[in-house]
Amino acid sequence: MSGIPLDKVDLEARKRAAKILHEKFRKILEDILSGKAPKLEIPKRTLANTIFDKERGILVLGEQKLEREFLDMGEARRFMQTLLMASIIYQALIENEYPTIRDLYYRGKHTIIYKDPSGRTRQENTWDEQAESDSVIRDIEVFTGLLREDMLILSKEKGKVVGNLKIRSGGDVIDLSKMGHGAYSIESTPDLIDFIDWDAEFVLVVEKDAVFQQLHRVGFWRKYKAILITGAGQPDRATRRFVRRLNEELKLPVYILTDSDPYGFYIYSVYKVGSIQLSYESERLATPSAKFLGVSMTDIFGWGRKKPYLTETERRNYIIKATDADIKRAKELMKYSWFRSPGWQRELKIFLEKKAKLEIEALASKGLKFLAFKYIPEKIETGDWIE
Amino acid sequence: MSGIPLDKVDLEARKRAAKILHEKFRKILEDILSGKAPKLEIPKRTLANTIFDKERGILVLGEQKLEREFLDMGEARRFMQTLLMASIIYQALIENEYPTIRDLYYRGKHTIIYKDPSGRTRQENTWDEQAESDSVIRDIEVFTGLLREDMLILSKEKGKVVGNLKIRSGGDVIDLSKMGHGAYSIESTPDLIDFIDWDAEFVLVVEKDAVFQQLHRVGFWRKYKAILITGAGQPDRATRRFVRRLNEELKLPVYILTDSDPYGFYIYSVYKVGSIQLSYESERLATPSAKFLGVSMTDIFGWGRKKPYLTETERRNYIIKATDADIKRAKELMKYSWFRSPGWQRELKIFLEKKAKLEIEALASKGLKFLAFKYIPEKIETGDWIE
Repeated sequence: MSGIPLDKVDLEARKRAAKILHEKFRKILEDILSGKAPKLEIPKRTLANTIFDKERGILVLGEQKLEREFLDMGEARRFMQTLLMASIIYQALIENEYPTIRDLYYRGKHTIIYKDPSGRTRQENTWDEQAESDSVIRDIEVFTGLLREDMLILSKEKGKVVGNLKIRSGGDVIDLSKMGHGAYSIESTPDLIDFIDWDAEFVLVVEKDAVFQQLHRVGFWRKYKAILITGAGQPDRATRRFVRRLNEELKLPVYILTDSDPYGFYIYSVYKVGSIQLSYESERLATPSAKFLGVSMTDIFGWGRKKPYLTETERRNYIIKATDADIKRAKELMKYSWFRSPGWQRELKIFLEKKAKLEIEALASKGLKFLAFKYIPEKIETGDWIE
Repeated sequence: MSGIPLDKVDLEARKRAAKILHEKFRKILEDILSGKAPKLEIPKRTLANTIFDKERGILVLGEQKLEREFLDMGEARRFMQTLLMASIIYQALIENEYPTIRDLYYRGKHTIIYKDPSGRTRQENTWDEQAESDSVIRDIEVFTGLLREDMLILSKEKGKVVGNLKIRSGGDVIDLSKMGHGAYSIESTPDLIDFIDWDAEFVLVVEKDAVFQQLHRVGFWRKYKAILITGAGQPDRATRRFVRRLNEELKLPVYILTDSDPYGFYIYSVYKVGSIQLSYESERLATPSAKFLGVSMTDIFGWGRKKPYLTETERRNYIIKATDADIKRAKELMKYSWFRSPGWQRELKIFLEKKAKLEIEALASKGLKFLAFKYIPEKIETGDWIE
């Protein structure tokens, strides 16, 4: 492309994805050529068809499928949208493009002018809002079994990593232990990363970027042989996939550190079992063995023989009153099957009783040494986590 | 600290900051010891004291100062807050801590119990909201001339960079041309970075992270010897400082690419002249020679002999109708002295006339090759930017 050598890793990924896309949609053509009414069978992405697979510990799509028939007036629009999007993605793959989901929305957005059976000229937009085109992309993901990352569709990424790990990405070998005060930003397509060499004992995922930076700066990962990661809030898909691969391929345990509130608990659960809205991604993105390291309610208030990490005065100064939204969220979490363990039920009960939440920064304010060299290692060493 | 060798670069930065902090606050002690009423003279951070310095092309604080006296009942609280915060920051500096502004809020948050003149026990919180403690930190910044980064206060960072540039950070040498598909996350303290070696002709700052990734992936910076940067929306201080240093120290021109809307125009102006709310930072963070590369209204609609980059059909499909908020914002921008150039006035007039905006992704949807290998290089080559 204009004298720039094409990335070999990407080229191979393109070939794989284009082939699958081609095969999956070829059937439509065959149907048409043989005079059959063309239709698509797509797994339903509804809440009712979202199941928590206890054995595997992740959210998955159930067996329900929907049929999208071209010759059904109610479905013709969506059928056409799906084929339009698939063809745009296919085109981008073979032309070495790197679209984003926003691009794909624009690429397909146009007005179709046609004559209706009575001969009147009419017009229809391919799609109006991005929500519509995004939904079509998700249909293609579940239909083909390809995640959008496999189709070289890029997106905004916030994930960062440092640690004793060497990776290969796009032909470069990158030593994640030599990032200075900065960090390595995880790419949109983490499946194209090769893990080359590592000397690490666990993965610590920190909810907040600023806390990640503090732990990095103070030498936490070097001392404890950790791979340190942040998703900067609600994690994106690439960060989740990267964490999963570290767990699955390098056999490293994954610990998650968030604020002590229902929002933080939910972030942990997205890493662990997947997101409710997009359960079909969980098979590749979730890390079912991930452990919630803290901050837990029992860290704040103690429990039985466990002493709290905060004094009475610290609790008075640091604790934030839970909002109504927090309480509503906690009640929802209590009902999810993946929060049914005794540990989580206790955690949520204490939260609802005390109506109190705490930010990680409150612990850091006890001294960064406390957070990095006492709280986190002690919790890991004594197995004081929740699953 | 617990067997981890301390970062030498950070240690020296700490020494510098602690010395300045010590000297600046020492006068208070001298006043007290000599029986004088202690007071602080702090430049006013008000809008009325924010001036656009035309010569230097940046927003700065004017001459107005406020006096904060300990013995004035109306000012005693803020006086005490300032001293409390300064002492916490000083403590953190000499104890090799890396606080965040959220930490500092927690570290100082407590209740003072005291007896009032009538002998009644009363209590007062040091501060209630973080907005209060943040404001005190800003007072300390303008009082000492130290930015919070100089005081090793960390914060959430979103900035990313790739390009033909080798830097030294925290003892590591990092080659920013060997980041694979990922990128280098800029640290909270970009003044501690050394530029070691570079082969670049300009800096391209892209508003959106996903567009940054597209340009990176397609080899844009390699082909045009660019240093490619994103601030992922409204840029943080570290990204702005990093861009400024590339401009000032490496003498590289800086081009800024945003959406074509008042929000994008404002982001450009934050890089260029600074933010209105925090004008005191501009002296170190702004890049007055930064140029707005696009997307401009004349790119969309043409102007005089300039042909538009979009066809009539593309305009129909891609243009988004401006909202009332956009229009209000554009009218505000028109009045700012740093938007008074003929180029900007024309740009804003076309915007208000057409009431139309456009996202960069709409250009990328014309093909990434178009964006990377035609639009951007052509605009730079022909000097088709706005200042």
